[in-house]
Amino acid sequence: MSTPRHRPELTQAARPATFVVTTLNEHGEPSEAQIAGEHPLTVYVDKQEILTLMTLGAAPEALVVGYLRNQRLVDSVDEIKAVQIDWEVNAASVYTQSGLVDLAAKMEHRTKTTGCGQGTVFGDLMADIDDIKLPTDVKLPQTTLYALAELVRKHETIYKQAGAVHGCALFSLTPELLYFVEDVGRHNAVDAIAGMMWLDGVDGGDKIFYTTGRLTSEMVIKAAQMGIPFLVSRSGLTQMGYEIAKRVGMTMIGRAVNKHFLLFCGEERFEYDTKVSAER
Amino acid sequence: MSTPRHRPELTQAARPATFVVTTLNEHGEPSEAQIAGEHPLTVYVDKQEILTLMTLGAAPEALVVGYLRNQRLVDSVDEIKAVQIDWEVNAASVYTQSGLVDLAAKMEHRTKTTGCGQGTVFGDLMADIDDIKLPTDVKLPQTTLYALAELVRKHETIYKQAGAVHGCALFSLTPELLYFVEDVGRHNAVDAIAGMMWLDGVDGGDKIFYTTGRLTSEMVIKAAQMGIPFLVSRSGLTQMGYEIAKRVGMTMIGRAVNKHFLLFCGEERFEYDTKVSAER
Repeated sequence: MSTPRHRPELTQAARPATFVVTTLNEHGEPSEAQIAGEHPLTVYVDKQEILTLMTLGAAPEALVVGYLRNQRLVDSVDEIKAVQIDWEVNAASVYTQSGLVDLAAKMEHRTKTTGCGQGTVFGDLMADIDDIKLPTDVKLPQTTLYALAELVRKHETIYKQAGAVHGCALFSLTPELLYFVEDVGRHNAVDAIAGMMWLDGVDGGDKIFYTTGRLTSEMVIKAAQMGIPFLVSRSGLTQMGYEIAKRVGMTMIGRAVNKHFLLFCGEERFEYDTKVSAER
Repeated sequence: MSTPRHRPELTQAARPATFVVTTLNEHGEPSEAQIAGEHPLTVYVDKQEILTLMTLGAAPEALVVGYLRNQRLVDSVDEIKAVQIDWEVNAASVYTQSGLVDLAAKMEHRTKTTGCGQGTVFGDLMADIDDIKLPTDVKLPQTTLYALAELVRKHETIYKQAGAVHGCALFSLTPELLYFVEDVGRHNAVDAIAGMMWLDGVDGGDKIFYTTGRLTSEMVIKAAQMGIPFLVSRSGLTQMGYEIAKRVGMTMIGRAVNKHFLLFCGEERFEYDTKVSAER
């Protein structure tokens, strides 16, 4: 990990991830169930309200930083002076070094030309996709893919306790699990990892992004923007996710469950292990 | 079904749901896989651009009508004169009878005070939640719950072919499957069903809403707005989904898989079958 040039002042305001409620099971018997937290978090930048995120609240500071990064409302983590989460009023207050230039114009533009796409911010993102160059000199061996799937499986997750969340993880090629974030929305989990990478000065070029969720256009675009050449999912993918991955030259693997997977594109970075892949 | 007073002119522009791509499997062998479609669809109301939805495109006209309904940009289906989908330019053109009053103000307000919440439109919706009255004189027998789960299971789904989609269904208490919609986003699937209900003049008061997806605050709020007293999911739920369901007095059932389920709230509308629930 490179040394960050600048790290904003941050609160450490994670919320409890799960709550216990009493339910009735199929026999009419009382049964305790754990459910995932979900909290509104309204983001203010220099006291101007931006939007309200619904989040599990496990990594709210990183989520807000990553949201601003992925929406490209902030160009560099150096611009962020502080992020303060206050759950008493469900507010995330971001302070910048010198104010965001054209914030009003950016927000206006987003509403008018792309809107929020019900979970997908789109228009502007596509415009820049062709400028992205992913590294071509990194390889993912089949044994590494299997090892990282095993690391995810062993990781303690809110999903196992309460369901209703998606998980995203960032791995080095060792593979070492660098970050693991769960949230009620896939978009939040990927944004939180983008925030952690910025805060820690981590480059995406030699990393693997893993998600339990589907590989839609938005997930692929965000991974590409973070400069990550490898995208792995337990789930399937959409046509547009596939087309964008091919266009940016990403190595994309879906349906990675146990020893099975499908390599959708970017096979030049994947190394089959002759012995492993021949096992039936 | 009641007779609709008014039905807008609609195109019938469903897109193919799945596409075949060639992948490499874990043995390095070529393998054909079906993937779900995903297309941008930019919504214009009286030629003013509203936002871009990312959709499977199975029921685009109903999706757009339901989106306008659930965002409360339109108060009644009577206000909608026509919806024209043109996939050559990925556009949905909505024409209203007499123009939308305060559309600019509504869009502005949403951006500034609630934003899009990354898949969750929130602020305004909560304000009105206490005005919702769900019927108390309808019952869901345990046998009906099991029968509808079986109907969903047997239904031909894109999920089975290609994954990467969520499904939503509307049932009568018979139970009869009235609508079944899959889309790349849960929010789209529920919006499309809201649109179909408006177009066909279907009331939610004696219906069951089923979803394969999680019961987050947004799903519960939307079902409540449609006046539907029963919400059933194969998945789990979030804390805020639970709290809102309790607040509006909804009967909410989660983790409904095979003969198992958890009744989270609204048990006064649920009828355990003594014989069925005693079976172990």
